[in-house]
Amino acid sequence: MIVTTKVQDMQTMMQQYRLEGKTIGFVPTMGYLHEGHVALIKKAREENDIVALSVFVNPLQFGPNEDFARYPRDIERDERIAKENGVDVFFCPSVEEMYPRPLSVQVVVKERVDVLCGKSRPGHFDGVATVLTKLFHIVMPTRAYFGMKDAQQVAVVDGLIRDFHFPIELVAVPTVREEDGLAKSSRNIYLSPEERKEAPALYQALQRAKQAIENGERHPETVCALVKDYIQANTSAEIDYVEIYAYPELKPLEKLRGKVIIAVAVRFANARLIDNIVMDVK
Amino acid sequence: MIVTTKVQDMQTMMQQYRLEGKTIGFVPTMGYLHEGHVALIKKAREENDIVALSVFVNPLQFGPNEDFARYPRDIERDERIAKENGVDVFFCPSVEEMYPRPLSVQVVVKERVDVLCGKSRPGHFDGVATVLTKLFHIVMPTRAYFGMKDAQQVAVVDGLIRDFHFPIELVAVPTVREEDGLAKSSRNIYLSPEERKEAPALYQALQRAKQAIENGERHPETVCALVKDYIQANTSAEIDYVEIYAYPELKPLEKLRGKVIIAVAVRFANARLIDNIVMDVK
Repeated sequence: MIVTTKVQDMQTMMQQYRLEGKTIGFVPTMGYLHEGHVALIKKAREENDIVALSVFVNPLQFGPNEDFARYPRDIERDERIAKENGVDVFFCPSVEEMYPRPLSVQVVVKERVDVLCGKSRPGHFDGVATVLTKLFHIVMPTRAYFGMKDAQQVAVVDGLIRDFHFPIELVAVPTVREEDGLAKSSRNIYLSPEERKEAPALYQALQRAKQAIENGERHPETVCALVKDYIQANTSAEIDYVEIYAYPELKPLEKLRGKVIIAVAVRFANARLIDNIVMDVK
Repeated sequence: MIVTTKVQDMQTMMQQYRLEGKTIGFVPTMGYLHEGHVALIKKAREENDIVALSVFVNPLQFGPNEDFARYPRDIERDERIAKENGVDVFFCPSVEEMYPRPLSVQVVVKERVDVLCGKSRPGHFDGVATVLTKLFHIVMPTRAYFGMKDAQQVAVVDGLIRDFHFPIELVAVPTVREEDGLAKSSRNIYLSPEERKEAPALYQALQRAKQAIENGERHPETVCALVKDYIQANTSAEIDYVEIYAYPELKPLEKLRGKVIIAVAVRFANARLIDNIVMDVK
């Protein structure tokens, strides 16, 4: 595995791979790799000649009251996990390397951001889209891999790639789950034993919503109410939101039809958990 | 010469050239080609295997009170000029092809815009940077060619390419001038015979400024005053601005040093003319 911290070295190396006709799978991360990331790496490994992984905690996507400084970092462990899972190129630039001076240009995301988690994080997806624009040019991937756990991020990246005509295929990888259905997350360790027992109720609620839709339910409010009721009856968590939209447009629907997302966020005592399912409604 | 109006066809074709190891020179234009554009085409022709030219009057870079609808268009003539000067690929998409739906993302330019012509055209360079980001991904050029007549646009594109790490070399081509020094422009035809005789005074004023700096002058205000005085003494034009900045940063300088631009905009009865020189100050 090649490890590099320099933008110029990375870009030159990846350009060479492209000239040799190699396909490049790219997994952009903020590090502290877990099984969700490993699923992305494995998928990229199956589909491409070269797998590149970046670790960069991007200050631009953290709000002033968010935890940029406290975000967990363990670059040696990340390197080991990347290497064990077949990553070819490991790119871990410093903040100074990625932002050597104030940016003269920035990407602003105008659609798909005023809902779900984006609603409470103004500017977050501008920071995501800006750093991805930079990374896409540095890495020049054939395919880029993102987890469906953050379905809104996938929707934003879909818009970025499509509207700016990036010659990149977006690959959305299904959420990795525990055996009881709980979506894997670094934050699950903050759950108390009691909360951990309750937490699978999120996915159960989403499954019930899916079942109701498959049985003919088409009213978004009814489906959301069902999810809320189930979570309230089966957990001590406080519901942040339960929302349902056309996907990936993230536009409200009067009647469910086409590809839709049902997404939920809840707060336990020390952990905020999110989950979602995307389904096709006939 | 291949002519295409479709984004997908263009991108596929250019990707093929890149895979064959060919270098691509790109000349983005709004059409109504004149000798300034021909100079860009010739330079691109000298330096690349393939020359691509786009003609697209970009609505995004026109303000609500600007002349998008009245902007001159003559696509047959543009095609002929492009062909005569050795263009290989002529890309002329419709507005619907470039903007089939509202953009979910946009580029915002944060530096180098609040001076010179940008001051009176809020949002103009956001539109320029956004359409160039799209075109750069569609055309995937090795080099992109811009005229120094619009030195602020060159500065903005320099920031765009550098800060987003586009793997593209920016080539700034010197302003093409009439024999008497007047910068070539489609708008020169709007000058009365008397104004046309006066107009070379712009370039003469800039040359005098250059001479003064070479003779040791280092105060921006003194140089600007010299340019203003010369234009006022020798033309009937109203001065819009005379400004001097570090280039390409477009930041004010207390004392002239390094690469600087001296730029001027004036209004004759029916034509607004701009001109500039860039020079190295020891």
